[in-house]
Amino acid sequence: MAATIIDSKIFGDMFSEADMRYVWSDENRTAKYLDVERALAKVQGRLGIIPQEAADEIVKHCDVRQIDWVKLKARTEQVGYPIIAVVNQINAACRDKLGEYCHWGATTQDITDTATVLQIREGLALVQRDLAEISAALASLAKKYRDTPVIGRSNLQQATPITFGYKMAGILAGIERHRERLAQLKPRVLVGQFGGASGTLSSLAKGAMETQAGLMQELGLGQPLISWHTVRDNIAEVGAFLGLVGGSLGKIAMDVKLMMQTEVAEVFEPFAPGRGSSSTMPQKRNPISCLYIHANISVVRQHAAALMDAMVADHERSTGPWEIEWVVLPEIFCLMAGALKQTKFVLAGLEVDAARMRANIDITKGLVMSEAVMMGLGPCIGREYAHDLVYELCRAALKDNRPLIELLAEHAEVSRHVSRAKLEEFCDPANNLGQAGHMVDRVLASLK
Amino acid sequence: MAATIIDSKIFGDMFSEADMRYVWSDENRTAKYLDVERALAKVQGRLGIIPQEAADEIVKHCDVRQIDWVKLKARTEQVGYPIIAVVNQINAACRDKLGEYCHWGATTQDITDTATVLQIREGLALVQRDLAEISAALASLAKKYRDTPVIGRSNLQQATPITFGYKMAGILAGIERHRERLAQLKPRVLVGQFGGASGTLSSLAKGAMETQAGLMQELGLGQPLISWHTVRDNIAEVGAFLGLVGGSLGKIAMDVKLMMQTEVAEVFEPFAPGRGSSSTMPQKRNPISCLYIHANISVVRQHAAALMDAMVADHERSTGPWEIEWVVLPEIFCLMAGALKQTKFVLAGLEVDAARMRANIDITKGLVMSEAVMMGLGPCIGREYAHDLVYELCRAALKDNRPLIELLAEHAEVSRHVSRAKLEEFCDPANNLGQAGHMVDRVLASLK
Amino acid sequence: MAATIIDSKIFGDMFSEADMRYVWSDENRTAKYLDVERALAKVQGRLGIIPQEAADEIVKHCDVRQIDWVKLKARTEQVGYPIIAVVNQINAACRDKLGEYCHWGATTQDITDTATVLQIREGLALVQRDLAEISAALASLAKKYRDTPVIGRSNLQQATPITFGYKMAGILAGIERHRERLAQLKPRVLVGQFGGASGTLSSLAKGAMETQAGLMQELGLGQPLISWHTVRDNIAEVGAFLGLVGGSLGKIAMDVKLMMQTEVAEVFEPFAPGRGSSSTMPQKRNPISCLYIHANISVVRQHAAALMDAMVADHERSTGPWEIEWVVLPEIFCLMAGALKQTKFVLAGLEVDAARMRANIDITKGLVMSEAVMMGLGPCIGREYAHDLVYELCRAALKDNRPLIELLAEHAEVSRHVSRAKLEEFCDPANNLGQAGHMVDRVLASLK
Amino acid sequence: MAATIIDSKIFGDMFSEADMRYVWSDENRTAKYLDVERALAKVQGRLGIIPQEAADEIVKHCDVRQIDWVKLKARTEQVGYPIIAVVNQINAACRDKLGEYCHWGATTQDITDTATVLQIREGLALVQRDLAEISAALASLAKKYRDTPVIGRSNLQQATPITFGYKMAGILAGIERHRERLAQLKPRVLVGQFGGASGTLSSLAKGAMETQAGLMQELGLGQPLISWHTVRDNIAEVGAFLGLVGGSLGKIAMDVKLMMQTEVAEVFEPFAPGRGSSSTMPQKRNPISCLYIHANISVVRQHAAALMDAMVADHERSTGPWEIEWVVLPEIFCLMAGALKQTKFVLAGLEVDAARMRANIDITKGLVMSEAVMMGLGPCIGREYAHDLVYELCRAALKDNRPLIELLAEHAEVSRHVSRAKLEEFCDPANNLGQAGHMVDRVLASLK
Repeated sequence: MAATIIDSKIFGDMFSEADMRYVWSDENRTAKYLDVERALAKVQGRLGIIPQEAADEIVKHCDVRQIDWVKLKARTEQVGYPIIAVVNQINAACRDKLGEYCHWGATTQDITDTATVLQIREGLALVQRDLAEISAALASLAKKYRDTPVIGRSNLQQATPITFGYKMAGILAGIERHRERLAQLKPRVLVGQFGGASGTLSSLAKGAMETQAGLMQELGLGQPLISWHTVRDNIAEVGAFLGLVGGSLGKIAMDVKLMMQTEVAEVFEPFAPGRGSSSTMPQKRNPISCLYIHANISVVRQHAAALMDAMVADHERSTGPWEIEWVVLPEIFCLMAGALKQTKFVLAGLEVDAARMRANIDITKGLVMSEAVMMGLGPCIGREYAHDLVYELCRAALKDNRPLIELLAEHAEVSRHVSRAKLEEFCDPANNLGQAGHMVDRVLASLK
Repeated sequence: MAATIIDSKIFGDMFSEADMRYVWSDENRTAKYLDVERALAKVQGRLGIIPQEAADEIVKHCDVRQIDWVKLKARTEQVGYPIIAVVNQINAACRDKLGEYCHWGATTQDITDTATVLQIREGLALVQRDLAEISAALASLAKKYRDTPVIGRSNLQQATPITFGYKMAGILAGIERHRERLAQLKPRVLVGQFGGASGTLSSLAKGAMETQAGLMQELGLGQPLISWHTVRDNIAEVGAFLGLVGGSLGKIAMDVKLMMQTEVAEVFEPFAPGRGSSSTMPQKRNPISCLYIHANISVVRQHAAALMDAMVADHERSTGPWEIEWVVLPEIFCLMAGALKQTKFVLAGLEVDAARMRANIDITKGLVMSEAVMMGLGPCIGREYAHDLVYELCRAALKDNRPLIELLAEHAEVSRHVSRAKLEEFCDPANNLGQAGHMVDRVLASLK
Repeated sequence: MAATIIDSKIFGDMFSEADMRYVWSDENRTAKYLDVERALAKVQGRLGIIPQEAADEIVKHCDVRQIDWVKLKARTEQVGYPIIAVVNQINAACRDKLGEYCHWGATTQDITDTATVLQIREGLALVQRDLAEISAALASLAKKYRDTPVIGRSNLQQATPITFGYKMAGILAGIERHRERLAQLKPRVLVGQFGGASGTLSSLAKGAMETQAGLMQELGLGQPLISWHTVRDNIAEVGAFLGLVGGSLGKIAMDVKLMMQTEVAEVFEPFAPGRGSSSTMPQKRNPISCLYIHANISVVRQHAAALMDAMVADHERSTGPWEIEWVVLPEIFCLMAGALKQTKFVLAGLEVDAARMRANIDITKGLVMSEAVMMGLGPCIGREYAHDLVYELCRAALKDNRPLIELLAEHAEVSRHVSRAKLEEFCDPANNLGQAGHMVDRVLASLK
Repeated sequence: MAATIIDSKIFGDMFSEADMRYVWSDENRTAKYLDVERALAKVQGRLGIIPQEAADEIVKHCDVRQIDWVKLKARTEQVGYPIIAVVNQINAACRDKLGEYCHWGATTQDITDTATVLQIREGLALVQRDLAEISAALASLAKKYRDTPVIGRSNLQQATPITFGYKMAGILAGIERHRERLAQLKPRVLVGQFGGASGTLSSLAKGAMETQAGLMQELGLGQPLISWHTVRDNIAEVGAFLGLVGGSLGKIAMDVKLMMQTEVAEVFEPFAPGRGSSSTMPQKRNPISCLYIHANISVVRQHAAALMDAMVADHERSTGPWEIEWVVLPEIFCLMAGALKQTKFVLAGLEVDAARMRANIDITKGLVMSEAVMMGLGPCIGREYAHDLVYELCRAALKDNRPLIELLAEHAEVSRHVSRAKLEEFCDPANNLGQAGHMVDRVLASLK
């Protein structure tokens, strides 16, 4: 049975997600090795670097179903790397020693790096899909609640009203930037490796660059300008990107769990019978998905730092730093997949209690309208004076637990300048949403 | 198939270790839940808090072999936590609704926290075993090579001679401090949890503290002064401890891999046919174990930080921070187990080439004896002057690629004060090992 | 002007603290170098290793007021380390070249490491003082509010009542564990360094160990078993300790800021006119101190990981890892000092609104008493059944927004077993505080 | 005196750099606040939102030389943020209460965020300049040593020959990717903030979006689609970018320090008299710059993670996460500036010993040519067989300490297929550089 929470048969689908786990599975990783070896043989056969007959035979045996996993493990442990072990098996399966043309001119890290890039491509495709879904869900919320007042909170204090759509649109703008980042990093990251022992392709007397170009074309990857066995900004960039995405999901989870507080109760994770219930406290509505999001992305950002550590590689094949990637890449992708999945779930079915949002604006008895009042009074009595006056009235209102509007109305200087009706207008949240709706529209209009 | 490198059926035993994986497996975790529920029922039966008949029936069904894993997963996903799911299964297995007395007065986190502490106890026992073995291996190397000269290196420059035993003893002293830390942290960490919903045991009308005391005694754990559901310094301390141990293993791996360099070749990881070989470079002797140690401990220290993050828990049951532990604890232990295992392997069979060590001391043609020479000359001609003079002669020796001793012997003022024989004595590493042996003895004498 | 927030003349006393900044200042660091050189000369004079006359002269000039800072900077930049530069200045100040006996047998890192340990001693003394004050403040709150009900919150949902004293006592127990950790780590950490170039004291022909012992005695530090220039678990342990303390302060800040929320309003940071006010929202009561605590400890835990990274030291003087400590130690201590200071401020003057706490318990109309009700009903109608029934009634109460007690009283089976008066008793928080007070007493009784 | 290493008057210019420190200084930060307030007044005067007279008066007093720093500190500590304090001073300086129109419609975070972006712009400009210089230095080395053989090292074992130019070009390719990243992130990051209390600009009854647009144009920043007070992917992206750059510098430092090892001695940091010297070991050539690079970038990557943590912001103004940026941004930029400066120094004056590089290729007596031999023999005797044979001969050569070529020449089957002359050709590094030069050319050709 699995030890990690990712591979746990109990928790795996809460903290992670099956498709992403498959991407990083032994099976898929080994299949990717075989994809690379197969493509290499194919290209080298075509270029006449190895006999076509050998290429054909190799291609036939680059099949993950033919792998003897027990042997693979044993030989990998012996050598320290899995590729010789895989090539031995291909070789053994080929007739007439034709398998000796397999892995021609390649070094272990060529195959593993290229396979890793293929896995990253699959992993990023899932992330891209999820970001698109999250973007759509946020856009839908932003549109639907474009004009639904909710109190804005600053330093966890009620500040001034905003709309719930505005809140969602701000987050959405960040998600859209992530999608842009992803598009920009792909050409840097989806680049294969084929350089031989020290990366110079000295291993191929002829057709070296042609093999490299052909191999990358075959796999749909970019061709590197030069070998990057120990220049790993591309891999670390993936980690940094996931760490940044994680931060955005963490913000979503933070806001949702704060708004789900018993005392706030403005939004809720989608309800399902029994979901988030407690064994002893039936009244609870636990922000279950938010828990996983928060936890996963806390670990993800540490993994992002670990991948930067992995960049401090020595010479032409690093002695330990590279293996950091072996540990971290599956985890960072699988934890992000869990966080993305939970975020999609939360947003797709988010329950929004607009009435409670409206009611919460009133709990300070108008104090949260003080800015509006201050700004309203400013032109009449001067901004700093208005500020100081409203500040004082608010403190008085707080002290006596009275509505601000009463104190305003009673105040001689205020009432000299402003009518009660005007004061009520100042105090209505619907009149004080500023550019919230307009900003929502700007974000929605920017969507591709 | 597993996605993580820890659970990988190919790499799992290189980056981790089977016993530790078992500790954190779904199976053992669930078994620990059952251990806690069983102990609770037993104690509460004895105290008359639940009927003895119920206790007996519950005890009978707290058996991991009776668990329906599919149901457990489904119900856990629904609730967000596994304990209700487990209790439901026990309950269902008990006759006459006696199972309703199971989990009496407990909350989910009581069971999971206590189970986690039981897992930590098992995990730390493995770490303790490994530290003892590493300590013994280092002590053996320190003793065997107590007087074997090797060059000391400062800033990767040859500095002055030390002995290989001294080098090992310095590291050993650090391992011994870890063993002391482990002994000190256990009473803080091996403490169970039993507090009910918000930790006050309001869930038990009578016998609350007696149940708590009895439960902990039954499980061999310390009784908490107060509930610690959201006061997690104990858990984070385990992570910090493992992070510190990791640093020491990283230092070992660093030194071994540097000493295995082709240009240095002073020590080697144990040889096994094919081990550390390259698919294209048969001459290589790769520091395979060091790779895993380096990589694992790089991730471990980030996990240590994540566990500190998990301490920032809200109120009486944290909303996300706790789940960080769920992700991190299995990984930090399993990665450390891999690093410890590889370190044991390296140290137990370390090949030491004393002749090459001695030869390497000579490659600077005596320059590394400059301190000895300087200190020898100091009393005669003044220390700063001796320093400056030797510094100049060393630069001359470097420039002309001549042995330092020749330049010293030729120098008028030096030869006025010191004979050639004396100079040769100054230049013999065996005469310049200072307190290396004595320090080794001090460390060995301190071993418990 | 300073670039860092720690040294900022505007923000320095918000994010950090003057006494701790002084500990890590250029001035104090250099003074510590001089303390070590002075003590060394004194001891070596006494032991007859250097002439007494030289010792006296050196002691006279180990005076930080005599340092030429411009020269010190220039020479330090040239060499890469500051000690030669300091020794040069002492030497130049001494008459008759007696200064050449300064730094006798020492290496740069002996002086800097021992100086660092002296700084750590001062830094830890400040931390110890602050932990004692925090402990006292928490104990006072725990005692004062031992029986003051407040709702316990689990997953940010109101759960069951606790007392505010219980909440404080739980945190206090963690602080006490930190004080124990601090006491335990000191003998490991407050150990000096004196080993010469590669640590073997080959630099001293005689009196080597006597010098080392005397030097450490003079400085009040422990004598090392063996040199630890590249065995840095002691330094990293300090970072780990601070990281753990940080986690506890983070928990305090988290709870305080959540309880200061407009919708909760149960506790407040101490009030001072203008403190935490907003330029536009006069009603706000910002948790200013909590901001700094949260931020600082987030960085502190990353620094703790960096100090573990610094343990991966090469050979006898590390090439980069050591310098991580140079960057991190001042910051981790100075940020912690800021967090400790703010925590002391918050706790010492914490405003507690017991009435609001009591009122907040009622906002769910009795739902948070469901556990009490469930436990009360359990003996009569069976625990799982009681659980399910109360769970259903709670959902009904939620749906209809009615008090739970009404639904209970109306329920046929419930009313058959339990009177209205009994139900009211079940629903009174004061009757459902379990062992809260007792646990507070246990923690207070454990204080040293 | 400063506490941090960055602001240290001794170490500040070793670990950091004056221009970057200035960017993050109190002085420049405050100047930026004033720049923003000035631009705001200017734009609002132009738009008729505030009286032109007021705008003129405010503009006149937005002058950092007029700041009373003592008052600024005191008021900032009181409020928790510096902007009210600055605005108060402007206000007090203006005649006829015209200063009350200062900060019109803005919130504290509008000013600080926009000021921070202005500081980031200046900081990134320095990074960009340094990256360009590093790129140029690497290009120059790549060109100069395009065909200079050096041994490639894999797992710290000599592998196959490469050229030193190839080594430099590989690193250069990564630097170029960083420059591309920088260009791509600027439009996302160099975007100002102007939203008022909760970001909706409810604070401005008219001209809100016009003010925002005008303000950004005035400052040369992008206009946000929507307020981003708590959507901080832009800021965290800067940290991630610097962390990635740090990784590349760490790789450079790692290779340089390894190549400076006494036993390798292939390259050296630029020599200056006394630089990198030891107080006791005059022969040493310490990789001083590499130390700082290694240390700084180790901390930088932790700071990158901290900035991701800062993204987990609550609601409309975050309660602690934002302050993480206050601590981290100055440090991450200042530490990177130090690392960049040291890297420029190392590369610009790097001493390359081509003769020693060539000599080091020979120390294995031809074993590092085994790949070449194997590839050469492959076509004749089959690749796997050639592999196994050469592998065996290499082990024999190692065992007997004989040149590989002798064993090859003596081997019956080999000599049947290949002449001695051909074997010597296989064994000449100059014949086995593969596409090294071609890859160098590809990278150089890609430079913009």
